[in-house]
Amino acid sequence: MKVTLIGAGPGDPDLITLKGIKALKSADVVLHDALASTELLEYCKPECIIVNVGKRFAQHSCNQDVINHLIVEYAQQYGHVVRLKGGDPFIFGRGYEELEYAQRHGIETQVVPGISSSYAVPALAGIPLTTRGLSESFWVVTGTTKDHKLSNDLALAAQSSATVVVLMGMHKLTEIVETYAQLGKLELPVAIIQNGTRPDEKIVTGKVGNILQLVQAEGIGSPAIIVLGAVAQLADNVKKFTQLVNY
Amino acid sequence: MKVTLIGAGPGDPDLITLKGIKALKSADVVLHDALASTELLEYCKPECIIVNVGKRFAQHSCNQDVINHLIVEYAQQYGHVVRLKGGDPFIFGRGYEELEYAQRHGIETQVVPGISSSYAVPALAGIPLTTRGLSESFWVVTGTTKDHKLSNDLALAAQSSATVVVLMGMHKLTEIVETYAQLGKLELPVAIIQNGTRPDEKIVTGKVGNILQLVQAEGIGSPAIIVLGAVAQLADNVKKFTQLVNY
Repeated sequence: MKVTLIGAGPGDPDLITLKGIKALKSADVVLHDALASTELLEYCKPECIIVNVGKRFAQHSCNQDVINHLIVEYAQQYGHVVRLKGGDPFIFGRGYEELEYAQRHGIETQVVPGISSSYAVPALAGIPLTTRGLSESFWVVTGTTKDHKLSNDLALAAQSSATVVVLMGMHKLTEIVETYAQLGKLELPVAIIQNGTRPDEKIVTGKVGNILQLVQAEGIGSPAIIVLGAVAQLADNVKKFTQLVNY
Repeated sequence: MKVTLIGAGPGDPDLITLKGIKALKSADVVLHDALASTELLEYCKPECIIVNVGKRFAQHSCNQDVINHLIVEYAQQYGHVVRLKGGDPFIFGRGYEELEYAQRHGIETQVVPGISSSYAVPALAGIPLTTRGLSESFWVVTGTTKDHKLSNDLALAAQSSATVVVLMGMHKLTEIVETYAQLGKLELPVAIIQNGTRPDEKIVTGKVGNILQLVQAEGIGSPAIIVLGAVAQLADNVKKFTQLVNY
Protein backbone atom coordinates (compact mmCIF):
# COMPACT_ATOMS: atom_id res chain seq x y z
CA MET A 1 0.00 0.00 0.00
CA LYS A 2 1.98 2.92 -1.30
CA VAL A 3 1.60 6.24 -3.08
CA THR A 4 4.38 7.69 -5.22
CA LEU A 5 4.01 11.31 -6.24
CA ILE A 6 5.89 11.94 -9.49
CA GLY A 7 6.78 15.10 -11.39
CA ALA A 8 6.37 14.57 -15.13
CA GLY A 9 8.45 17.62 -16.05
CA PRO A 10 7.58 20.51 -18.38
CA GLY A 11 6.09 18.59 -21.30
CA ASP A 12 8.67 16.70 -23.34
CA PRO A 13 8.20 13.06 -22.24
CA ASP A 14 11.99 12.57 -22.24
CA LEU A 15 12.28 15.12 -19.44
CA ILE A 16 10.88 12.74 -16.84
CA THR A 17 13.46 11.13 -14.55
CA LEU A 18 14.52 7.52 -14.73
CA LYS A 19 13.14 7.04 -11.21
CA GLY A 20 9.80 8.36 -12.41
CA ILE A 21 9.76 5.85 -15.26
CA LYS A 22 10.59 2.99 -12.89
CA ALA A 23 7.75 4.00 -10.59
CA LEU A 24 5.30 4.18 -13.52
CA LYS A 25 6.36 0.67 -14.58
CA SER A 26 5.55 -0.70 -11.14
CA ALA A 27 2.25 1.16 -10.69
CA ASP A 28 -1.04 -0.69 -10.18
CA VAL A 29 -2.97 2.56 -10.59
CA VAL A 30 -1.95 5.90 -12.14
CA LEU A 31 -3.91 9.06 -11.33
CA HIS A 32 -2.74 11.78 -13.68
CA ASP A 33 -3.44 15.43 -14.31
CA ALA A 34 -3.92 16.83 -17.78
CA LEU A 35 -0.61 15.95 -19.42
CA ALA A 36 1.18 17.74 -22.24
CA SER A 37 1.88 14.24 -23.56
CA THR A 38 0.20 10.91 -22.87
CA GLU A 39 3.30 9.00 -24.02
CA LEU A 40 4.39 8.61 -20.41
CA LEU A 41 1.42 6.31 -19.79
CA GLU A 42 2.96 3.79 -22.19
CA TYR A 43 5.40 2.81 -19.44
CA CYS A 44 2.52 1.38 -17.41
CA LYS A 45 1.81 -2.34 -17.15
CA PRO A 46 -1.07 -3.50 -19.39
CA GLU A 47 -3.23 -4.21 -16.34
CA CYS A 48 -2.53 -0.82 -14.75
CA ILE A 49 -5.65 1.25 -14.06
CA ILE A 50 -5.24 4.72 -15.53
CA VAL A 51 -7.44 7.57 -14.33
CA ASN A 52 -7.40 11.12 -15.66
CA VAL A 53 -8.26 13.47 -12.81
CA GLY A 54 -7.10 16.59 -14.65
CA LYS A 55 -8.93 19.39 -16.33
CA ARG A 56 -7.82 19.43 -19.92
CA PHE A 57 -9.23 16.21 -21.27
CA ALA A 58 -11.61 14.89 -18.63
CA GLN A 59 -15.19 16.05 -19.00
CA HIS A 60 -15.32 16.95 -15.36
CA SER A 61 -12.14 17.60 -13.47
CA CYS A 62 -12.03 16.27 -9.96
CA ASN A 63 -11.76 18.58 -7.02
CA GLN A 64 -8.95 18.16 -4.52
CA ASP A 65 -11.04 16.29 -1.94
CA VAL A 66 -12.08 13.75 -4.54
CA ILE A 67 -8.48 13.25 -5.68
CA ASN A 68 -7.28 12.76 -2.09
CA HIS A 69 -10.04 10.22 -1.54
CA LEU A 70 -9.30 8.36 -4.78
CA ILE A 71 -5.61 8.04 -3.91
CA VAL A 72 -6.43 6.36 -0.60
CA GLU A 73 -9.19 4.18 -2.07
CA TYR A 74 -7.04 2.90 -4.91
CA ALA A 75 -4.00 2.32 -2.69
CA GLN A 76 -6.09 0.26 -0.27
CA GLN A 77 -7.69 -1.72 -3.07
CA TYR A 78 -4.81 -2.22 -5.54
CA GLY A 79 -1.47 -1.51 -3.85
CA HIS A 80 0.85 0.96 -5.58
CA VAL A 81 -0.72 4.21 -6.73
CA VAL A 82 1.33 6.64 -8.81
CA ARG A 83 0.14 10.23 -8.76
CA LEU A 84 1.56 11.88 -11.88
CA LYS A 85 1.66 15.68 -12.02
CA GLY A 86 3.16 18.13 -14.51
CA GLY A 87 6.41 19.91 -13.64
CA ASP A 88 7.51 19.28 -10.07
CA PRO A 89 4.78 18.12 -7.68
CA PHE A 90 5.92 20.27 -4.73
CA ILE A 91 6.11 23.58 -6.64
CA PHE A 92 2.65 25.14 -6.84
CA GLY A 93 1.08 21.75 -7.21
CA ARG A 94 -0.99 20.51 -4.32
CA GLY A 95 1.04 17.36 -4.15
CA TYR A 96 2.09 17.90 -0.59
CA GLU A 97 -1.53 17.98 0.57
CA GLU A 98 -2.15 14.69 -1.22
CA LEU A 99 0.80 12.94 0.41
CA GLU A 100 -0.12 14.30 3.82
CA TYR A 101 -3.67 13.00 3.40
CA ALA A 102 -2.41 9.58 2.34
CA GLN A 103 -0.02 9.43 5.30
CA ARG A 104 -2.83 10.26 7.70
CA HIS A 105 -4.59 7.21 6.29
CA GLY A 106 -1.64 4.97 6.99
CA ILE A 107 -0.33 4.76 3.45
CA GLU A 108 3.40 4.82 2.74
CA THR A 109 4.37 7.81 0.61
CA GLN A 110 7.24 8.66 -1.72
CA VAL A 111 8.01 11.69 -3.82
CA VAL A 112 10.01 11.73 -7.05
CA PRO A 113 10.90 15.31 -8.00
CA GLY A 114 10.31 16.50 -11.55
CA ILE A 115 11.87 19.17 -13.73
CA SER A 116 10.04 22.36 -12.81
CA SER A 117 8.84 24.56 -15.68
CA SER A 118 9.81 27.60 -13.61
CA TYR A 119 13.44 27.26 -14.71
CA ALA A 120 13.34 24.67 -17.50
CA VAL A 121 11.01 26.62 -19.79
CA PRO A 122 13.21 29.75 -19.59
CA ALA A 123 16.37 27.61 -20.00
CA LEU A 124 15.06 26.00 -23.16
CA ALA A 125 14.22 29.48 -24.45
CA GLY A 126 17.85 30.50 -23.87
CA ILE A 127 17.39 32.18 -20.47
CA PRO A 128 19.39 30.97 -17.45
CA LEU A 129 17.69 32.22 -14.26
CA THR A 130 21.08 33.03 -12.80
CA THR A 131 24.31 33.92 -14.52
CA ARG A 132 27.40 35.77 -13.35
CA GLY A 133 27.17 39.52 -13.58
CA LEU A 134 23.45 39.57 -14.38
CA SER A 135 21.62 37.79 -11.58
CA GLU A 136 22.66 36.04 -8.42
CA SER A 137 19.26 34.82 -7.29
CA PHE A 138 15.79 33.96 -8.55
CA TRP A 139 12.32 34.29 -7.13
CA VAL A 140 9.38 32.22 -8.29
CA VAL A 141 5.84 33.41 -7.58
CA THR A 142 2.45 32.36 -8.79
CA GLY A 143 0.01 34.84 -10.24
CA THR A 144 -2.88 32.73 -9.02
CA THR A 145 -2.91 32.62 -5.24
CA LYS A 146 -5.55 31.07 -3.03
CA ASP A 147 -7.31 34.44 -2.63
CA HIS A 148 -6.89 35.37 -6.33
CA LYS A 149 -4.69 38.35 -5.53
CA LEU A 150 -1.20 39.08 -6.75
CA SER A 151 1.20 38.12 -3.98
CA ASN A 152 2.42 41.05 -1.88
CA ASP A 153 5.86 39.52 -2.21
CA LEU A 154 6.06 40.84 -5.75
CA ALA A 155 6.58 44.41 -4.50
CA LEU A 156 9.64 43.22 -2.58
CA ALA A 157 10.88 41.01 -5.39
CA ALA A 158 10.63 43.93 -7.81
CA GLN A 159 13.02 45.96 -5.63
CA SER A 160 15.59 43.17 -5.62
CA SER A 161 18.16 42.15 -8.19
CA ALA A 162 16.61 38.69 -8.36
CA THR A 163 15.34 37.24 -11.60
CA VAL A 164 11.58 37.04 -10.99
CA VAL A 165 9.56 34.24 -12.56
CA VAL A 166 5.78 34.49 -12.47
CA LEU A 167 3.84 31.31 -13.19
CA MET A 168 0.17 31.47 -14.21
CA GLY A 169 0.30 35.25 -14.11
CA MET A 170 -0.82 36.52 -17.52
CA HIS A 171 -4.10 37.81 -16.12
CA LYS A 172 -2.06 39.92 -13.69
CA LEU A 173 0.44 41.24 -16.23
CA THR A 174 -0.78 44.84 -16.08
CA GLU A 175 -0.50 44.82 -12.29
CA ILE A 176 2.97 43.24 -12.45
CA VAL A 177 4.17 45.83 -14.96
CA GLU A 178 2.79 48.66 -12.78
CA THR A 179 4.66 47.33 -9.74
CA TYR A 180 7.95 47.57 -11.63
CA ALA A 181 7.07 50.85 -13.36
CA GLN A 182 6.44 52.51 -9.99
CA LEU A 183 10.04 51.67 -9.09
CA GLY A 184 11.23 53.34 -12.29
CA LYS A 185 12.31 50.04 -13.81
CA LEU A 186 10.92 50.71 -17.30
CA GLU A 187 14.10 49.48 -19.00
CA LEU A 188 14.19 46.12 -17.18
CA PRO A 189 14.09 43.24 -19.69
CA VAL A 190 11.04 40.98 -19.70
CA ALA A 191 10.45 37.73 -21.58
CA ILE A 192 7.15 35.91 -21.86
CA ILE A 193 7.05 32.32 -23.00
CA GLN A 194 3.71 30.85 -24.02
CA ASN A 195 3.27 27.08 -24.35
CA GLY A 196 6.88 26.58 -23.25
CA THR A 197 8.74 23.63 -24.81
CA ARG A 198 5.77 22.76 -27.03
CA PRO A 199 5.83 22.93 -30.83
CA ASP A 200 3.50 25.96 -30.63
CA GLU A 201 5.80 27.80 -28.21
CA LYS A 202 5.82 31.58 -28.64
CA ILE A 203 8.33 33.94 -27.05
CA VAL A 204 8.12 37.69 -26.80
CA THR A 205 10.90 39.77 -25.29
CA GLY A 206 10.85 43.43 -24.43
CA LYS A 207 11.05 45.72 -21.44
CA VAL A 208 8.75 46.70 -18.60
CA GLY A 209 7.95 49.84 -20.58
CA ASN A 210 6.70 48.11 -23.72
CA ILE A 211 5.83 44.51 -22.87
CA LEU A 212 2.07 45.13 -22.65
CA GLN A 213 1.95 46.45 -26.22
CA LEU A 214 4.18 43.63 -27.46
CA VAL A 215 2.00 40.97 -25.85
CA GLN A 216 -1.06 42.47 -27.50
CA ALA A 217 0.64 42.79 -30.87
CA GLU A 218 1.88 39.21 -30.79
CA GLY A 219 -1.31 37.78 -29.36
CA ILE A 220 0.38 36.07 -26.42
CA GLY A 221 -1.97 34.51 -23.88
CA SER A 222 -2.12 31.85 -21.16
CA PRO A 223 -0.54 29.52 -20.26
CA ALA A 224 2.67 31.50 -20.16
CA ILE A 225 5.69 32.08 -17.95
CA ILE A 226 6.82 35.66 -17.28
CA VAL A 227 10.53 36.29 -16.64
CA LEU A 228 11.59 39.72 -15.35
CA GLY A 229 15.25 40.63 -14.96
CA ALA A 230 18.46 41.29 -16.85
CA VAL A 231 18.74 37.64 -17.94
CA ALA A 232 15.48 37.94 -19.90
CA GLN A 233 17.34 39.80 -22.65
CA LEU A 234 19.45 36.70 -23.31
CA ALA A 235 16.57 35.07 -25.14
CA ASP A 236 17.44 37.48 -27.97
CA ASN A 237 21.22 37.22 -27.78
CA VAL A 238 21.71 33.54 -27.96
CA LYS A 239 20.25 31.09 -30.41
CA LYS A 240 17.54 29.13 -28.70
CA PHE A 241 18.75 26.01 -26.94
CA THR A 242 15.87 23.93 -28.17
CA GLN A 243 15.17 20.65 -26.50
CA LEU A 244 13.47 19.26 -29.58
CA VAL A 245 16.41 17.11 -30.45
CA ASN A 246 16.52 13.36 -30.71
CA TYR A 247 19.57 11.32 -29.83
CA MET B 1 30.09 19.25 -33.88
CA LYS B 2 27.80 19.71 -30.93
CA VAL B 3 27.81 20.38 -27.18
CA THR B 4 25.01 19.17 -24.93
CA LEU B 5 24.93 20.61 -21.43
CA ILE B 6 23.21 18.18 -19.05
CA GLY B 7 22.03 18.47 -15.47
CA ALA B 8 22.78 15.29 -13.54
CA GLY B 9 20.35 16.12 -10.72
CA PRO B 10 20.96 16.16 -6.97
CA GLY B 11 22.92 12.92 -6.58
CA ASP B 12 20.77 9.81 -6.97
CA PRO B 13 21.69 8.53 -10.47
CA ASP B 14 18.01 7.69 -11.12
CA LEU B 15 17.15 11.38 -10.87
CA ILE B 16 18.70 12.18 -14.24
CA THR B 17 16.23 12.62 -17.10
CA LEU B 18 15.71 10.15 -19.90
CA LYS B 19 16.90 12.82 -22.34
CA GLY B 20 20.09 13.16 -20.33
CA ILE B 21 20.69 9.42 -20.54
CA LYS B 22 20.12 9.43 -24.31
CA ALA B 23 22.60 12.25 -24.74
CA LEU B 24 25.21 10.42 -22.62
CA LYS B 25 24.75 7.33 -24.78
CA SER B 26 25.49 9.31 -27.94
CA ALA B 27 28.46 11.27 -26.52
CA ASP B 28 31.93 11.03 -28.05
CA VAL B 29 33.39 12.94 -25.11
CA VAL B 30 32.03 13.60 -21.62
CA LEU B 31 33.44 16.42 -19.49
CA HIS B 32 32.06 16.07 -15.99
CA ASP B 33 32.27 17.86 -12.69
CA ALA B 34 32.79 16.08 -9.42
CA LEU B 35 29.76 13.76 -9.33
CA ALA B 36 27.95 12.38 -6.32
CA SER B 37 27.85 9.14 -8.29
CA THR B 38 29.94 7.91 -11.21
CA GLU B 39 27.25 5.39 -12.22
CA LEU B 40 25.96 7.83 -14.83
CA LEU B 41 29.18 7.36 -16.80
CA GLU B 42 28.19 3.73 -17.41
CA TYR B 43 25.73 4.95 -20.05
CA CYS B 44 28.64 6.10 -22.21
CA LYS B 45 29.86 4.15 -25.26
CA PRO B 46 33.02 2.12 -24.56
CA GLU B 47 35.05 4.39 -26.86
CA CYS B 48 33.75 7.59 -25.23
CA ILE B 49 36.47 9.84 -23.81
CA ILE B 50 35.67 10.73 -20.20
CA VAL B 51 37.34 13.70 -18.56
CA ASN B 52 36.88 14.80 -14.95
CA VAL B 53 37.19 18.58 -14.81
CA GLY B 54 35.73 18.86 -11.31
CA LYS B 55 37.26 19.46 -7.95
CA ARG B 56 36.41 16.51 -5.80
CA PHE B 57 38.38 13.73 -7.43
CA ALA B 58 40.73 15.38 -9.89
CA GLN B 59 44.11 16.29 -8.51
CA HIS B 60 43.83 19.72 -9.97
CA SER B 61 40.46 21.13 -10.87
CA CYS B 62 40.29 23.05 -14.11
CA ASN B 63 39.47 26.71 -14.14
CA GLN B 64 36.59 28.01 -16.22
CA ASP B 65 38.74 29.20 -19.13
CA VAL B 66 40.33 25.79 -19.44
CA ILE B 67 36.93 24.06 -19.38
CA ASN B 68 35.57 26.40 -22.07
CA HIS B 69 38.60 25.72 -24.21
CA LEU B 70 38.39 21.94 -23.72
CA ILE B 71 34.73 21.88 -24.75
CA VAL B 72 35.52 23.56 -28.05
CA GLU B 73 38.68 21.52 -28.68
CA TYR B 74 36.95 18.20 -28.06
CA ALA B 75 33.88 19.14 -30.12
CA GLN B 76 36.07 20.10 -33.06
CA GLN B 77 38.13 16.94 -32.77
CA TYR B 78 35.55 14.29 -31.84
CA GLY B 79 32.02 15.53 -32.57
CA HIS B 80 29.51 15.33 -29.73
CA VAL B 81 30.65 16.64 -26.36
CA VAL B 82 28.43 16.18 -23.33
CA ARG B 83 29.09 18.56 -20.47
CA LEU B 84 27.68 16.90 -17.33
CA LYS B 85 27.06 19.08 -14.28
CA GLY B 86 25.40 18.39 -10.91
CA GLY B 87 21.86 19.68 -10.28
CA ASP B 88 20.61 21.94 -13.06
CA PRO B 89 23.29 23.50 -15.26
CA PHE B 90 21.63 26.94 -15.47
CA ILE B 91 21.11 27.41 -11.72
CA PHE B 92 24.31 28.72 -10.14
CA GLY B 93 26.38 26.59 -12.46
CA ARG B 94 28.39 28.40 -15.03
CA GLY B 95 26.84 26.35 -17.78
CA TYR B 96 25.47 29.32 -19.63
CA GLU B 97 28.94 30.79 -20.03
CA GLU B 98 30.15 27.50 -21.45
CA LEU B 99 27.39 27.28 -24.03
CA GLU B 100 27.85 30.92 -25.01
CA TYR B 101 31.56 30.32 -25.52
CA ALA B 102 30.90 27.24 -27.64
CA GLN B 103 28.34 29.11 -29.74
CA ARG B 104 30.81 31.91 -30.38
CA HIS B 105 33.10 29.21 -31.77
CA GLY B 106 30.46 27.98 -34.17
CA ILE B 107 29.45 24.89 -32.24
CA GLU B 108 25.81 23.83 -32.02
CA THR B 109 24.59 23.82 -28.42
CA GLN B 110 21.80 22.10 -26.52
CA VAL B 111 20.75 22.16 -22.91
CA VAL B 112 19.01 19.37 -21.01
CA PRO B 113 17.68 20.65 -17.68
CA GLY B 114 18.36 18.68 -14.52
CA ILE B 115 16.58 18.37 -11.19
CA SER B 116 17.87 21.27 -9.11
CA SER B 117 18.94 20.52 -5.55
CA SER B 118 17.37 23.84 -4.51
CA TYR B 119 13.93 22.25 -4.35
CA ALA B 120 14.61 18.51 -4.64
CA VAL B 121 16.76 18.24 -1.53
CA PRO B 122 14.13 19.97 0.63
CA ALA B 123 11.35 17.89 -1.04
CA LEU B 124 13.09 14.64 -0.24
CA ALA B 125 13.51 15.84 3.34
CA GLY B 126 9.73 16.39 3.51
CA ILE B 127 9.69 20.14 2.77
CA PRO B 128 7.69 21.48 -0.19
CA LEU B 129 8.96 24.98 -1.06
CA THR B 130 5.39 26.13 -1.58
CA THR B 131 2.19 24.86 -0.07
CA ARG B 132 -1.20 26.44 0.42
CA GLY B 133 -1.54 28.58 3.51
CA LEU B 134 2.19 28.52 4.33
CA SER B 135 4.08 29.91 1.33
CA GLU B 136 3.08 31.25 -2.05
CA SER B 137 6.54 31.90 -3.45
CA PHE B 138 10.14 30.80 -3.09
CA TRP B 139 13.40 32.56 -3.56
CA VAL B 140 16.73 30.86 -4.17
CA VAL B 141 19.99 32.61 -3.45
CA THR B 142 23.59 31.52 -3.21
CA GLY B 143 25.71 32.33 -0.19
CA THR B 144 28.78 32.42 -2.36
CA THR B 145 28.54 35.32 -4.79
CA LYS B 146 31.22 36.55 -7.16
CA ASP B 147 32.35 39.19 -4.66
CA HIS B 148 32.05 36.85 -1.64
CA LYS B 149 29.38 38.97 0.02
CA LEU B 150 25.90 37.94 1.10
CA SER B 151 23.45 39.22 -1.50
CA ASN B 152 21.66 42.44 -0.54
CA ASP B 153 18.52 40.78 -1.79
CA LEU B 154 18.36 38.73 1.40
CA ALA B 155 17.14 41.75 3.37
CA LEU B 156 14.17 42.03 1.00
CA ALA B 157 13.51 38.31 0.93
CA ALA B 158 13.50 38.19 4.73
CA GLN B 159 10.66 40.74 4.77
CA SER B 160 8.57 38.64 2.40
CA SER B 161 6.46 35.55 2.94
CA ALA B 162 8.62 33.64 0.45
CA THR B 163 10.33 30.44 1.40
CA VAL B 164 14.02 31.34 1.17
CA VAL B 165 16.55 28.72 0.08
CA VAL B 166 20.23 29.51 0.51
CA LEU B 167 22.68 27.29 -1.36
CA MET B 168 26.33 27.16 -0.32
CA GLY B 169 25.61 29.52 2.54
CA MET B 170 26.74 27.82 5.74
CA HIS B 171 29.66 30.21 6.13
CA LYS B 172 27.13 33.07 6.10
CA LEU B 173 24.65 31.50 8.54
CA THR B 174 25.28 34.00 11.34
CA GLU B 175 24.73 36.90 8.96
CA ILE B 176 21.56 35.29 7.57
CA VAL B 177 20.17 34.70 11.05
CA GLU B 178 20.93 38.32 12.02
CA THR B 179 19.06 39.62 8.97
CA TYR B 180 15.92 37.78 10.09
CA ALA B 181 16.42 38.52 13.79
CA GLN B 182 16.53 42.26 13.06
CA LEU B 183 13.05 41.92 11.60
CA GLY B 184 11.86 40.22 14.77
CA LYS B 185 11.43 36.86 13.03
CA LEU B 186 12.96 34.77 15.82
CA GLU B 187 10.14 32.21 15.65
CA LEU B 188 10.45 31.59 11.89
CA PRO B 189 11.18 27.91 11.18
CA VAL B 190 14.55 27.01 9.65
CA ALA B 191 15.75 23.66 8.32
CA ILE B 192 19.31 22.83 7.33
CA ILE B 193 20.04 19.78 5.23
CA GLN B 194 23.62 18.61 4.97
CA ASN B 195 24.65 16.12 2.27
CA GLY B 196 21.11 16.14 0.90
CA THR B 197 19.82 12.86 -0.61
CA ARG B 198 23.03 11.04 0.33
CA PRO B 199 23.22 8.17 2.81
CA ASP B 200 25.04 10.48 5.23
CA GLU B 201 22.33 13.15 5.02
CA LYS B 202 21.75 15.11 8.24
CA ILE B 203 18.80 17.39 8.90
CA VAL B 204 18.43 19.90 11.70
CA THR B 205 15.26 21.92 12.19
CA GLY B 206 14.70 24.82 14.52
CA LYS B 207 13.91 28.50 14.46
CA VAL B 208 15.81 31.66 13.63
CA GLY B 209 16.28 32.14 17.39
CA ASN B 210 18.00 28.81 18.07
CA ILE B 211 19.34 27.44 14.79
CA LEU B 212 22.94 28.56 15.41
CA GLN B 213 23.11 26.59 18.66
CA LEU B 214 21.45 23.56 17.06
CA VAL B 215 23.89 23.56 14.15
CA GLN B 216 26.79 23.64 16.57
CA ALA B 217 25.30 20.92 18.79
CA GLU B 218 24.61 18.63 15.83
CA GLY B 219 27.89 19.35 14.08
CA ILE B 220 26.27 20.38 10.80
CA GLY B 221 28.64 21.78 8.19
CA SER B 222 29.01 22.33 4.44
CA PRO B 223 27.75 21.36 1.94
CA ALA B 224 24.28 22.16 3.17
CA ILE B 225 21.05 23.79 2.03
CA ILE B 226 19.35 26.30 4.33
CA VAL B 227 15.56 26.64 4.13
CA LEU B 228 13.88 29.56 5.94
CA GLY B 229 10.10 29.88 6.13
CA ALA B 230 6.98 28.31 7.57
CA VAL B 231 7.35 25.21 5.36
CA ALA B 232 10.66 24.35 7.07
CA GLN B 233 8.74 23.04 10.09
CA LEU B 234 7.16 20.34 7.90
CA ALA B 235 10.39 18.35 7.97
CA ASP B 236 9.37 17.45 11.54
CA ASN B 237 5.68 16.89 10.94
CA VAL B 238 5.73 14.46 8.11
CA LYS B 239 7.69 11.26 7.80
CA LYS B 240 10.56 11.81 5.43
CA PHE B 241 9.74 11.16 1.79
CA THR B 242 12.96 9.35 1.13
CA GLN B 243 14.02 8.78 -2.43
CA LEU B 244 16.11 5.79 -1.50
CA VAL B 245 13.57 3.36 -2.85
CA ASN B 246 14.00 0.87 -5.63
CA TYR B 247 11.22 -0.10 -7.98
